[in-house]
Amino acid sequence: MNAELHPTSKPSRLEALTRALDQGTMRQVHRLVNSMHPAEVASLLESLPPTQREVVWDLVDPELEGDVLVELNDEVRAGLISEMDAEELVAAAEGLEVDDLADLLSDLPETVNQQVLRSMDSQDRERLNAVLGFAEDTAGGLMNTDTVSVRPDVTLETVLRYLRMRGDIPDKTDALFVVNRHDRYLGVLSVTRLLTEDPERTVGEVMDTAVEGIPPDLPANRVTSLFQDRDLVSAAVVAPDTRRLLGRITIDDVVDVIREEADHSVMSMAGLDEDADMFAAVVPSARRRGVWLGINLATAFLAAWVVGLFETTIQNIVALAVLMPIVASMGGVAATQTLTLIVRGLALGQIERANARWLLTKEIAVAMLNGLAWASVVALVSFAWYRQWKISAVIFAAMVVNLLAAALAGVVVPLSLKRFGVDPAVAGGVIVTTVTDVVGFASLLGLGTLILR
Amino acid sequence: MNAELHPTSKPSRLEALTRALDQGTMRQVHRLVNSMHPAEVASLLESLPPTQREVVWDLVDPELEGDVLVELNDEVRAGLISEMDAEELVAAAEGLEVDDLADLLSDLPETVNQQVLRSMDSQDRERLNAVLGFAEDTAGGLMNTDTVSVRPDVTLETVLRYLRMRGDIPDKTDALFVVNRHDRYLGVLSVTRLLTEDPERTVGEVMDTAVEGIPPDLPANRVTSLFQDRDLVSAAVVAPDTRRLLGRITIDDVVDVIREEADHSVMSMAGLDEDADMFAAVVPSARRRGVWLGINLATAFLAAWVVGLFETTIQNIVALAVLMPIVASMGGVAATQTLTLIVRGLALGQIERANARWLLTKEIAVAMLNGLAWASVVALVSFAWYRQWKISAVIFAAMVVNLLAAALAGVVVPLSLKRFGVDPAVAGGVIVTTVTDVVGFASLLGLGTLILR
Repeated sequence: MNAELHPTSKPSRLEALTRALDQGTMRQVHRLVNSMHPAEVASLLESLPPTQREVVWDLVDPELEGDVLVELNDEVRAGLISEMDAEELVAAAEGLEVDDLADLLSDLPETVNQQVLRSMDSQDRERLNAVLGFAEDTAGGLMNTDTVSVRPDVTLETVLRYLRMRGDIPDKTDALFVVNRHDRYLGVLSVTRLLTEDPERTVGEVMDTAVEGIPPDLPANRVTSLFQDRDLVSAAVVAPDTRRLLGRITIDDVVDVIREEADHSVMSMAGLDEDADMFAAVVPSARRRGVWLGINLATAFLAAWVVGLFETTIQNIVALAVLMPIVASMGGVAATQTLTLIVRGLALGQIERANARWLLTKEIAVAMLNGLAWASVVALVSFAWYRQWKISAVIFAAMVVNLLAAALAGVVVPLSLKRFGVDPAVAGGVIVTTVTDVVGFASLLGLGTLILR
Repeated sequence: MNAELHPTSKPSRLEALTRALDQGTMRQVHRLVNSMHPAEVASLLESLPPTQREVVWDLVDPELEGDVLVELNDEVRAGLISEMDAEELVAAAEGLEVDDLADLLSDLPETVNQQVLRSMDSQDRERLNAVLGFAEDTAGGLMNTDTVSVRPDVTLETVLRYLRMRGDIPDKTDALFVVNRHDRYLGVLSVTRLLTEDPERTVGEVMDTAVEGIPPDLPANRVTSLFQDRDLVSAAVVAPDTRRLLGRITIDDVVDVIREEADHSVMSMAGLDEDADMFAAVVPSARRRGVWLGINLATAFLAAWVVGLFETTIQNIVALAVLMPIVASMGGVAATQTLTLIVRGLALGQIERANARWLLTKEIAVAMLNGLAWASVVALVSFAWYRQWKISAVIFAAMVVNLLAAALAGVVVPLSLKRFGVDPAVAGGVIVTTVTDVVGFASLLGLGTLILR
């Protein structure tokens, strides 16, 4: 078995490369890097600190450079591009697929863009412009123009002969697209049927007309659900009005979108940018992270201000200051649980007005049960600590109130954010924990003021 | 354009279904449900509260049931299965792909399992056993046995005739596997080349021997990176010792794994189970969530205990109780940022010993900058509040210390957890926020005790 496929291959590759770099055995580095697939080289480059990254990049074979650039994350790519001269960039852009080239062009300096466009033949340039006309996160932006199309009135035998004459079929062609002479999309001829049906039959007899084309303005996340729900390998992109065949989307690009979406949802919850370079310089990294810390600081001041309202109470009953973190922390955890559940449901299209009320009721019931259970534990422990049943009663009530507030905020906040067009995965966490901090402190210290003083 | 492909289709489908259910127009529900793809029906069932879910499930056509069950999340599936009788279950299992059937069997009652196995012919049963022999989260568990294999010494013409005679090729067949007469894997014959090369040539001349087979014990997450990095549609699973062709893995199953992995990483950070039913009954939901709340409560008691050590200090300087939440909250946010970055890097195989030290240095530098910046803001605001520069000095120092602790914990905790075989995405968050709570309270109140009393 090839060692490359072995479970531990990726880690050991990074280690091997780092060791070779440290020892200065550049021929070994060169061999190692150029035996890998472009996506693997990209991942390796992303794993290297800036100086090592530049050394390795210089050793990547020129014919690989374009494909590697396409696979890199935005910031790392921009960094490498800024060090390349125009000639290298034009060479790297050559031979890229149209959708990849469209992505790359947006990162290139304008003068290089012009050069790349001039170096293309007019047909390719036209194709590129077709893709550039659509936003990157739509079906149109994801498509390639490398479709193979056939007419309905020819026989399969003719198609087979045509393909042999053509001598080349694009990767991931699991179906040819059937169009009329005005290039209007009629359906698909799957390669499987082409291979198994009687060659005397016509394309029109064998084609599948039930497979719809995708409109170019369909958002990328809808494209991914379509591919997933229907187990597609490729799909036609068709203009909704003229029904003209514009291009096709292939599963490899869809998989990349799925990965990026997943990455985005994890990173954005912590206020991080999934396109940022893990090895970016300290000052820009600090600035980016600082924004999120600043937003959090504003909410923390709000919570502190609430505590400040009860200074006299705290001075009299210090126990409340000790118990404060417990109420706030439990509320934050409970709210995050409900929020995560709702955000996922929204992302999957599984939560709407129709079932939101049911979920809210359920979440409040769950919060009630857990509130009563854990508040009892906290009440008992604090009784053991302070021997004052009134203190136990106050923290018990504050915890129940805060867990109910957590459930309410966990459901209502993401639904409202979504309605106002704000990504609930990004803003939701900050808001719900602010709610539980404020409600937690206010209920604990407020009840404490009423009952204990 | 078909309305089904319109961006708003999915939401409106759930709304439409709910409305039809409310109005009791069951024929409409029936038509709506059975016009959808199995994965779409599954998603819809997951979006319904229990009673409605059962009503809709009864309306799903029997021939769809198996495919829908396969697509459902574990808990919802188990719920529906428990309501079905043996006959229905055996019927649903019929016609499923081997890997799907293997998944489903583990959820069926033993008696039904026996019936399903008896209803299969011996070849299918043998294939099923081949898949059941491997863990679900390995290449072997993901594979199907529906391979089409050819010998190297025949011509392409013969292959084409063989396929036509066969009359049926499994979905997602982008390549036939080339084996010798002992069924040993030699390479692949891509369908593209089969269609474009001269039919007189032999398979052996045209096949690609550079494409390695995947060993059956390769973990599922390695399989997904392979498919992603190399843009595969299907790949052969090959026994490492005998090099016998065991089966093949297709991109649709890989996409499902990618989605599940992403789902798992988001849900597990909040202590949630991605296989749980969103509409599960209140008591089991509360019990599941309660465990996570309990773990958090233990850490909250630890933080409260630290605060309790400084009761006299708080009584004298109440300002410290007011500022406490700020230090803890900023530390928690900073730690979560670093943790998220490291956990992602580990998941992508981009962080190892080779670059971990570099990252730690960088994270500490970032924390230093942000610590100094935001601690200054907090110091100024608290000076405006309390007019005591000593209080400002204490909170300044405590914040800088806590952000440094956050960076340290954010890097070291996930790396250590990984080394001990614990999933850093699950346990990391609880541990690092406990660290920042404890360090935050201890440094603020400790410095306060030293300087202010």
